[in-house]
This record gives sequence, C-alpha cells and structure tokens, in this order.
Amino acid sequence: MKFVIIGGDAAGMSAASRAKRRAPEMEITVFEKTNDVSYSACGMPYNIADPNRSIEELVVRQAHVFREKNHIDLRTGHFVEKIDRESKNITGRSIQGHTFTMEYDYLLLATGASPIIPSIEGVNQDGIVALKSLEDGRKIKDFISHKGIRKTVIIGMGYIALEMAEALRALGIQVDMVKPRPDLLPWMNREIAEIVKKELIDHKVGIHAGQKIQRIEKHEKGIFKVICSDVILEGEMILAAVGVTPNSQLGEAAGLELGPANSIAIDRHTKTSDPHIFAAGDCADAYHVVTGGKAWVPLALRANRAGWAVADNITGNHVELEGIAGTAVFKVFDLQVARSGLGMREAESSGFDPVETVIQSRSRAHAHPGASTIWVQIIGDKKSGRLLGAQLLGREGAAHRINAVAVALHQKMTVEAFSQCDLAYAPPFGPVWDPLLTAANQTLKKM
Amino acid sequence: MKFVIIGGDAAGMSAASRAKRRAPEMEITVFEKTNDVSYSACGMPYNIADPNRSIEELVVRQAHVFREKNHIDLRTGHFVEKIDRESKNITGRSIQGHTFTMEYDYLLLATGASPIIPSIEGVNQDGIVALKSLEDGRKIKDFISHKGIRKTVIIGMGYIALEMAEALRALGIQVDMVKPRPDLLPWMNREIAEIVKKELIDHKVGIHAGQKIQRIEKHEKGIFKVICSDVILEGEMILAAVGVTPNSQLGEAAGLELGPANSIAIDRHTKTSDPHIFAAGDCADAYHVVTGGKAWVPLALRANRAGWAVADNITGNHVELEGIAGTAVFKVFDLQVARSGLGMREAESSGFDPVETVIQSRSRAHAHPGASTIWVQIIGDKKSGRLLGAQLLGREGAAHRINAVAVALHQKMTVEAFSQCDLAYAPPFGPVWDPLLTAANQTLKKM
Repeated sequence: MKFVIIGGDAAGMSAASRAKRRAPEMEITVFEKTNDVSYSACGMPYNIADPNRSIEELVVRQAHVFREKNHIDLRTGHFVEKIDRESKNITGRSIQGHTFTMEYDYLLLATGASPIIPSIEGVNQDGIVALKSLEDGRKIKDFISHKGIRKTVIIGMGYIALEMAEALRALGIQVDMVKPRPDLLPWMNREIAEIVKKELIDHKVGIHAGQKIQRIEKHEKGIFKVICSDVILEGEMILAAVGVTPNSQLGEAAGLELGPANSIAIDRHTKTSDPHIFAAGDCADAYHVVTGGKAWVPLALRANRAGWAVADNITGNHVELEGIAGTAVFKVFDLQVARSGLGMREAESSGFDPVETVIQSRSRAHAHPGASTIWVQIIGDKKSGRLLGAQLLGREGAAHRINAVAVALHQKMTVEAFSQCDLAYAPPFGPVWDPLLTAANQTLKKM
Repeated sequence: MKFVIIGGDAAGMSAASRAKRRAPEMEITVFEKTNDVSYSACGMPYNIADPNRSIEELVVRQAHVFREKNHIDLRTGHFVEKIDRESKNITGRSIQGHTFTMEYDYLLLATGASPIIPSIEGVNQDGIVALKSLEDGRKIKDFISHKGIRKTVIIGMGYIALEMAEALRALGIQVDMVKPRPDLLPWMNREIAEIVKKELIDHKVGIHAGQKIQRIEKHEKGIFKVICSDVILEGEMILAAVGVTPNSQLGEAAGLELGPANSIAIDRHTKTSDPHIFAAGDCADAYHVVTGGKAWVPLALRANRAGWAVADNITGNHVELEGIAGTAVFKVFDLQVARSGLGMREAESSGFDPVETVIQSRSRAHAHPGASTIWVQIIGDKKSGRLLGAQLLGREGAAHRINAVAVALHQKMTVEAFSQCDLAYAPPFGPVWDPLLTAANQTLKKM
C-alpha cells in the first residue's frame, strides 16, 4: 500500500512516523515544500528572544533521521501542485525545477496554514516579515542580529503578535503594536483583556488599537513608516501577525469539501469528502466539543493528534476524534493567559443563552506569602445549565488550571456538576476553594 | 428554627455563615471547645517556617466578627459532652466549668479530627507535640522560638510530617523522620516516592523508614532520645505526625451510624442516620466518586463544601454532594506532589483490575529553557477502561495539572476518552502532548 503525505510538519510527520511504526511494510512518501520538517514552531518567539540560542535548536528531528532511522521516503523541497483524484496521483515540482508524479492508495493533506499578509499599500518589501515557518524564524533572527534593529512595529495583536512583542522587548527593541479593530483580543472578556493591555504597557509596548493602517512607506536608513489614521509608527522591521489562513488550495482545486475559514472539511475519522484522501492539522477543520459544529482552530496538539489518527485509520485501527475544546494558553511577559471553550460572543452566535462571571481570587492561600491575583471568567448556558467556556489570567497558576475546564467541556458538564469537583488544595497553590470553583459558584447564582 | 452546631472550624463556620445568609431569622448557635474559629490549619507549617510571621495571621475571621457582623451566637470554650436525640438537646461544660444545655431542631456535628498519638512509651511529655489545632501551632512556634531548638524528630511521614520537615529545615533545624512501616508514602507509586525521598535527603532530612519505635526517653538539657530498632534519634522537640482520627465519639455515643475509620456516616444530603442530625468535615465520611463506596478523607475543601451543603439542606435548597475524588496536593521543598483517585493498592482492593504506567516528561517544550522533569502515573481499569487515578510530581506544573484528572474521575471517564482531551499547550508550560496525555496514551497500550 502506498501512503502519500503532502506536508512534513506536525500533522504530516506524526502520521508518517506512526503509520511506519504500525505498518513497517507500508510505502510512505512525504513531500515537503521547504527544507524543514518537525520543528517546534511555537517555540520561535522564545528562541528569537535569546540571541545566544540558534534557531536550529527548535528542530525536533532532522530530515535525515526520518529517512535513515524511520525509513520514511521524505522529499524536502518538493512542492505538490495538483491532485488527480480520478487517477489517484499527485504531481508537483521540486526546488530544482524537476516535475514529479506519484500514485497513492491513501493521500494525506497536511499542508498547514500560512500567515495572512494584510492588503496594505507597501506591505511587500524586504524587512516586512511574518512568522510561521522555521525559515521565517531564521530570517527574522538574522535580520535582527545583522541590522542592529532598535524599533519595530507589529501589525496584529493575537497570540504570536503578543509573544513576539515580549521577545523583541527582551532584546531591548522598542515595540509598537497596531490593529484596525478596537479590542486587543476580541474573544477575551474585557476586564481580563485590560489586565493584558496593562501588562504590555508596563513593559513599554505601545498599543495602538482602532487604527486603520493606510500604507507602509520606506524611508532612508531602512526606516519604515506605518501610516495609520491617527498615528505614524516607525520601525526598521515590521511584523505582520494578523493571523493565518489554511493552505487548502490544493484540496479545494481537487474539489474537496471545505469547512470553516476555507479549511478542508474532515469527518471524525479525519477523512475528507474523498474516501482516499485524509486531511490533518492546520489545513483541516475539526468538531468543536461545545457547539457540536465545525471549527477551524490551528493549534499544535490537535495537528499531532489528527496525524496519529490518520495513521491509525489507514492501518486498521479505527479512531474517531472527539474534537477540540478550543483550549489555548499563552504567556505575555509575566502573565499566564488561558482559555477553553467559547467566549461570550461565540456562545451567543452558537445559539446558547450564555451568562458570564469574572471573579478575582488569589494564587495562594490566605496569609501565604507571594500570592498574586488570579482572574477567572466562567460562562454557563442558562437554558441547559452547561459550562460553555472559561478564561484564566494570573502571574502563576493560570496555565494548567484551564485543563480542568477542557475536560469538563469534553464531558459537556453543567456548571453545577463542575462546581462539585474535588479539586486540589494546598496553601502554596491556591485557596481552599479553587478560583475555578469560586467562579463556577458565582456563575451558578446568575443561572 | 434552632440550628445548633458543634465545632467552629471549616465545616461548622461555613454552615453557620451560609445558613444565616440564607435564613437570617434562624437561631444559630455554635459551640467550639477551643478559643479559635475559622483559621487556615493547612497554612501552619508555612507560618512556623517564618519566625517573622505571627501565627495569628492564619485567622481568617475572628470570633467577634462572626458574633457582631454575622449575628451568629458563637460560644468558644464550650465543650459539648452529650447529645440526647430523644429530647433533641445537647449538654456540655464551658472552660469556666459551667454546664450548659440547649435544644435543637437541627444539629450539625462538625467536630473535626484529632492527631493520633502513637502508643509509644514516654510519648506523653512536654516537648512531644502534634500539629492540628491553631493552639498546637502556637505551642510549637513558641517552643521553637523560646527553647532555641537545634534538632527535632518527626514520627510519621505523611503530608503534615513532610511539610513540617520543610518548615523546620527552613529554620535551620536538623530533622530526622522515622516510621515503622518501610515505605515513605505507601499510597504512592514507588518510582515517584523515590524522587520525594531523594528531595528530602538532598535537603539533609534524615529518613528512617522501617524502624520500630520502642520508647522515648528524656535526657538532660531537654534532649529526647527516640529509641528505635536500629537507631537512636535525638531532638529537643518530637513531632508526632502519624495521622488523624475523626472526632466521632459524641455521635457514636448517641448511637449514630459510623462509616470508614469510625467517622460519622452521612448520606449524600450530609444527613446522619438521625434525620435531625447532620455531620460535615473531618468527623464525617463521604462518597468516593471512583469506587462509589464510602471513604474518609479529612481535607479542607470537602469540609467547607459539606458545611455549605448542610446550610442549604436545612434552609430548603436541597443539595446532594457528589463526593470526593481523593484529590490532594502538597509541596515538599522544591517539589510539587499531587494525586487524585485511587492508588494501585486501593484500586485492587476496590475490585478493579488496575494497570499503571509511570512516564517522565518535561515541564516545558522541546528546547525551551528552564525545563525540568515531570513524572506522571496513570492508573486504568482493564475491565471497564475507566481512569482510576493519577499521581504527578515535578518542580513546576504538577500541582494544578491534577485537577484535569479530578474532573475526569468525577465524570467516570475512560482512559481513552481522557486521552482525547484538548489540553492547553504553549512552550513555557509543557510539551505539545501534555504529560497527562502521554501517560494516558502509554496506559492505554497496556489496557
């Protein structure tokens, strides 16, 4: 059997390795358009923050290891241009310009996502960068170390934008962040978002939300000017971090069904609308355990998990993926910010009758030294009593606490049932009533 | 209506405050034998560790506040000696020697637990102490500061013993721990327990497990000698921390049904075998969500929660307590140790067919600086596929991660369903596959 994989990052290489382990006789070929496979993309901002670390440290397993140790036919620098579903083959072109073609029994699309380049006049210039691939990371790290950059502008205020703001400040670089919409993180509860904003300002990051970006001009000495409605921001490097879009063009051109945000639609068995073609990772959609509907959430865990599921499914171990809860965590300077499930707006638009509470609690017990404030938002559905989502923020104890919520969402628990859970207590780690329980109890009162 | 509460700590005062809030017209009287109410008992080791902090900081709310602000008739220094269930009244004696009697419509036993004093020759001497009440804490703190103690022996190796070992070492005091049974923490997976043991030894705590303790002798200059089978340990203070026993004598004498460890048996509505008498906190038992049977686990959260439930139930808001998952966390020097659910032995004796895995993972992502090892044990039931318990240990990220397991246990999830949960990932907080998921995946392979 011939298993062809397009894309050699998290989902693709997880699928390749696991399929080979489960079925050593299977012929597995991976086509990856870049020269990099299997690296920690999420680690790039932290690596960029430290000039003493090489970006190559982020490579988890090198291409030759997959070839020699895992016996996977991994072809880097190979760009697949077309899928012929009828003949069950793919064609493409290598970096060297050679065309290639290959037949498949099963095909996996693991083509990932690409950064969105905002349509701003002057955006296509050297020094205006995005961060998605390891090659992007290399370029940014190079640019910073060789150009002696002192000022940057980040367009966008999402996870990557925030992590990069921290990384650039760690290097002593001035950072201004700008976006057209008024809210820092639109999905976030406003009270919690204000704390994130204050943290950025306390670390001397300029926040310019609600600024229409008119054009980017290049001036002398390599200075860019970002001309906005009310402000002109300057930087020697401009990072566009306005989000990513699924690389679904290949699947779309082949007539596969699409899901939210033009991702490739897959069923619970990770199969596309063509029974011989699977999709996994950032290019594909997923079921959301709270809404029951489809969602597109490009995050690392579900890419790896879906890659494994594809491998299981084509090697005879039928796996159904339950879906995602929309769990995410990030660090911004000294704050941990975590979420799982729906925000208020998502909950409303998904047909729930949501009610939220935000409480402030402490990260350690009464009278325990070193405590800091912890904020918890809990959203419940008035109609069904269900827990719909939570957000957590604090200097400690926020990141891992969210996982209790994630499990509860997978189980479609009510806020009341969640409030009864026997969570851990010891003075160094929280109050007797865990902040999650206090928030759940408060939300219950409104339901 | 007359609501009488015996015991003014976590369960008793939670019940009193909430009942008064829900039904201001209710006559509520609390009899507390000591002069202390509402303090953070779990905070005592951390307070003792710091000579600059007064033990009184641990008081959350003082008696006069309950009287004046909450309008609760709180009588400290009042020891209840007898319950007459037929006449529905209690009688007792105050510290001043006055007898008192009071009728009730509803009675709550919130009498807590007492430290077990091991039956060792010479154990009843000044300088041989236990730690449970705030008064115990005061005495120990006083003793340490006035006697200029340099050496102590701790009998027992449970949570409190370990926390006190850390506290005493923080004060520069030599600590030897001794117990007759061979294992440091018998419920713990042996591989994980060895890490705890090493942490203690690294901090110069003497560990003497498997030592029969023959007698305690008092020598000159206030030195005690603890004579064991193979070793003689010396200290100016001996802490007996071999566990606690429920204060159920009053209930037992009144003919109430008893549960595990002679705790007072209660139903899901916190009611004892007498419909006019409730019990809550360390004196009462609870349902275990994993076994479905009764368990006695004296911990703070469930005491507070049960106190609230009693208040709800006697004021017309009928609450059923789901029970406990046996979740606990503690800190021992730089380690976080957490558990939820059953250990292997408990799982076997509860009729399951358990299988366990212990994995080592990292507290931060690949190539992220500052990572340390994290150990996870997951226990699954071969027959039903259910998740039965977990243990976590690490220098960071172990304490709050256990809560995801606690929620899963409340939901009686299978290991497979748990392994599908969408847990949080970001490089500063863990690997892409959360250590809990890696452990669940490994356990699945054995099931």
